[in-house]
Amino acid sequence: MKVLIVGGVAGGAAAAARLRRLDETAEIVLFERGEYISYANCGLPYYAGGVIAEREQLLLQTPQGFSRRFRVDVRTRCEVTAIEREFRRVRVREAGGREYAESYDRLILSPGAEPIIPDIPGIDLPGVHRVRTVPDIDAIKEALDNGRARHAVVIGAGFIGLEMAENLRERGMEVVIVEKQAQVLPHLDPEMAILIERELIAHGVRAEVSEEVVGLARGAGGSLRVSLRCGRMIETDMVVFSIGVRPEIRLAETAGLAIGRSGIRVNARMQTNDPDIYAVGDAVEILHPLLAEYAHLPLAWPAARQALAAANTIAGIGDEYRGGIGTAIVKVFTLAAAMTGVTEKVLCRHNRRFRKVYTHPAHRAGYYPGATPLSIKLLFAPDSGQVFGAQVVGNEGVDKRADLFAVAIKHAMTVFDLMEFDLCYAPPFGAAKDPVNMTAMVAVNHLRGLSPLAHWEDVPEGGYVLDVRTVREFASGTVSGAVNIPVDDLRQRVMEIPSGKRLYVFCQFGARAHTAVRFLRQKGFDAVNLSGGYETFLCQGR
Amino acid sequence: MKVLIVGGVAGGAAAAARLRRLDETAEIVLFERGEYISYANCGLPYYAGGVIAEREQLLLQTPQGFSRRFRVDVRTRCEVTAIEREFRRVRVREAGGREYAESYDRLILSPGAEPIIPDIPGIDLPGVHRVRTVPDIDAIKEALDNGRARHAVVIGAGFIGLEMAENLRERGMEVVIVEKQAQVLPHLDPEMAILIERELIAHGVRAEVSEEVVGLARGAGGSLRVSLRCGRMIETDMVVFSIGVRPEIRLAETAGLAIGRSGIRVNARMQTNDPDIYAVGDAVEILHPLLAEYAHLPLAWPAARQALAAANTIAGIGDEYRGGIGTAIVKVFTLAAAMTGVTEKVLCRHNRRFRKVYTHPAHRAGYYPGATPLSIKLLFAPDSGQVFGAQVVGNEGVDKRADLFAVAIKHAMTVFDLMEFDLCYAPPFGAAKDPVNMTAMVAVNHLRGLSPLAHWEDVPEGGYVLDVRTVREFASGTVSGAVNIPVDDLRQRVMEIPSGKRLYVFCQFGARAHTAVRFLRQKGFDAVNLSGGYETFLCQGR
Repeated sequence: MKVLIVGGVAGGAAAAARLRRLDETAEIVLFERGEYISYANCGLPYYAGGVIAEREQLLLQTPQGFSRRFRVDVRTRCEVTAIEREFRRVRVREAGGREYAESYDRLILSPGAEPIIPDIPGIDLPGVHRVRTVPDIDAIKEALDNGRARHAVVIGAGFIGLEMAENLRERGMEVVIVEKQAQVLPHLDPEMAILIERELIAHGVRAEVSEEVVGLARGAGGSLRVSLRCGRMIETDMVVFSIGVRPEIRLAETAGLAIGRSGIRVNARMQTNDPDIYAVGDAVEILHPLLAEYAHLPLAWPAARQALAAANTIAGIGDEYRGGIGTAIVKVFTLAAAMTGVTEKVLCRHNRRFRKVYTHPAHRAGYYPGATPLSIKLLFAPDSGQVFGAQVVGNEGVDKRADLFAVAIKHAMTVFDLMEFDLCYAPPFGAAKDPVNMTAMVAVNHLRGLSPLAHWEDVPEGGYVLDVRTVREFASGTVSGAVNIPVDDLRQRVMEIPSGKRLYVFCQFGARAHTAVRFLRQKGFDAVNLSGGYETFLCQGR
Repeated sequence: MKVLIVGGVAGGAAAAARLRRLDETAEIVLFERGEYISYANCGLPYYAGGVIAEREQLLLQTPQGFSRRFRVDVRTRCEVTAIEREFRRVRVREAGGREYAESYDRLILSPGAEPIIPDIPGIDLPGVHRVRTVPDIDAIKEALDNGRARHAVVIGAGFIGLEMAENLRERGMEVVIVEKQAQVLPHLDPEMAILIERELIAHGVRAEVSEEVVGLARGAGGSLRVSLRCGRMIETDMVVFSIGVRPEIRLAETAGLAIGRSGIRVNARMQTNDPDIYAVGDAVEILHPLLAEYAHLPLAWPAARQALAAANTIAGIGDEYRGGIGTAIVKVFTLAAAMTGVTEKVLCRHNRRFRKVYTHPAHRAGYYPGATPLSIKLLFAPDSGQVFGAQVVGNEGVDKRADLFAVAIKHAMTVFDLMEFDLCYAPPFGAAKDPVNMTAMVAVNHLRGLSPLAHWEDVPEGGYVLDVRTVREFASGTVSGAVNIPVDDLRQRVMEIPSGKRLYVFCQFGARAHTAVRFLRQKGFDAVNLSGGYETFLCQGR
């Protein structure tokens, strides 16, 4: 059997290695347009920033080493320009210009995704960069290393944009990040992303949200002039585009393969509509099980898993890739932001009914030094409590909690299940009641009607807002119009509270308000807990 | 309704608070023998070590504060001495000696567990300590703070013993830890615990395993002389007993309540055989779902969860505690060791068939600085692949992986499920193929017969052991009798390998051996992968 693979980075290289392990007799040819295969593309921003010191560290496999270990015919600088399905062959163009045809029994497409570059004036000027390949990052690194670049504009505040902004800033650059949407990290809901925006600002990165670059021009002395939609200009030395990627579908499309709304369409065995042609990685769309629709999830693990499914299928081992739920994380200076499943924005767009909880627990036992706060948003079904999505922001322990939520989502678990998670605890690592258990408990108390939650956006004009924190906390800042009765005084002062009105109760994080709400409801009041308390209030609005 | 609660630490205080939130009208009396309620008993070793600087940090709630918030009648220094079930009342003895009876409608027992202290000579000498209560740790702290103690012997190398050894050592003490079993951390399997023993030694703590203290005596100048079973003596200034705890069943037993093999017997609603009497926390035995038998799991989260179940039941809210799988973690200097589910030792004792996998992946992307190795042992069913247990040792990311395994175990998932976990990845946090996915993949390749695993203990005398690492790695240390053919030379040198013999193949961690095994099996050899490779070999034996 002869298998051709187009694209030698994540999915392509993984498929080749697996296929060789499964079938020593197969003829395997790996085509890569660029010079490098199997490099650490997730590490590129950190190489620019000097966190990863050596360029060699990015190159996980050399073509020679890979070829030697897996007996794969690795052809770098070779672009597959067309698929001639009727002849089961591809057209190949070498760097030198020579063209030839190569036949296949099975073809795996792993062309990846390409950075989206807007069609604006000046886009081809020197100093305008993208972040996708080793040569891309070499160019950025060179500009940084020669020491002339002092200012950078990063366009797009998604995962890669934020990583680039951090790494450029850590190199001492003055960095502005420009984002078209009204928030950084548009994959998150805005009240969670604001924590990241504040972190950027705290580290000297200017964030221009709801703003767009409309043109680039040469400025004074080799600088670049970035024109914003609002009319302002930013003078800079370097521009980095990271506004997203689009699947590389051209080859598949030209060959008449089915294209979905977000990439090459494949089945669970990663076959396109031509059963001899497979596609994996950032070029394909995959089924998002929560939304029951196809989505583009250009992430590393799905690519690796899809490569396995394709290779297994070709080798005759039954395997299915069951879709991805978009679990992702990004480090932004001292914070991390993670998400899994779907956000409130996406649920609203799909007209899905949901409930949400905010919590702000310490990442480990509060009495153990170095405990830092997490901010958690959990989205779940109003009836069953099925977990739809979670977002976690904090300094430490973010990945751990996001992963636990991810498993719950993947296995269609409910907040009742989450509450029962039996996790490891010692003071340096967590809390007896882990943030995951605790967040689930809040949701369960809500679903059972014991301590119903409301949200800041639910409070009507003139609504009765009760701050049950201490007098001192109240004095140091509260919500306009809030009445203060500390939770510990509530029994004595309950007669001060008007009856017949819904009471919106809050404290700093939600725990004392829970105690207060339980008391007040038993006293006949329609009391609800403003989820996440004052801490969540501070995340609302800008 | 009048509810009495016996014991005011973890379970008792949690039950009282929950009950108050559910029922504002209940009369709740909390009896605590000691002076403190709701203190951070997991923090005690860290207070001794000075990691937790202030004593007040341990005292999560004062009796006054708790009483004010939850309107609970907190009676410290009050011991409940008897339950008179026929009168539905308890006998109480105050610190001052006064005795009285108190009636109940419902009674919750949360007496905890008591340190096991062997019946040996000298056990009551000054300088002999235990680690259970605030006064216990006050005594240790005082001995450390007055600066006279320079040497300590910690007896028992379980979780608390290791935490004490670390904290004493961090205060500059010379520490010897004595453990009766042949390994430290007897909750783990020996080849995992050896990593912790080495960490102790590397930090100057002497570990005496397979050793027992048979007597204590006064030594020269106020010191203590510790006699070991072997006849040796250790001269020391301080002895700390941490050989385990036993459930405090006396009160329940005397009252004729059912006692199981590991504590007070309760149902899933935490009721004893007297439906008006509940028991929670370290005093009860609980169902271990994997073993289908009762076990003693004196851990913080089960206690908290059980308290919730008891309070919910009393308040008429349906709730069941479904048992615990013993997820636990301990920090030992720069390492952490975690376990969940059952160990190989326990599986063997129960005559359960199982398979096991060892892996040693980096805790995050190897090319990102600071990646450190994890050692993972995964136990699973030979047929279904159901996960039975996992042990994880490493510097970073241990808790995260243990928690993921714990969820898999709790939900009766298989290694096939584990392989599909959709976890968050960016280079600072993990790997595209997370250690959890990767370990599961090894198990799946084994179960599918693609890359069968063997273990070092399976290699027969004179077995053909093939080291597929590089010549340089081979030269720097290998297994006696091993033949070296680097994986990349295997195709050229396959003729050197004798046929008709089982080939035991290994590399450093297992990945290259997997590639080699796949090749060799396709060439007709009976090749198996020595799981975990040379790294696991180094953990075998002492």
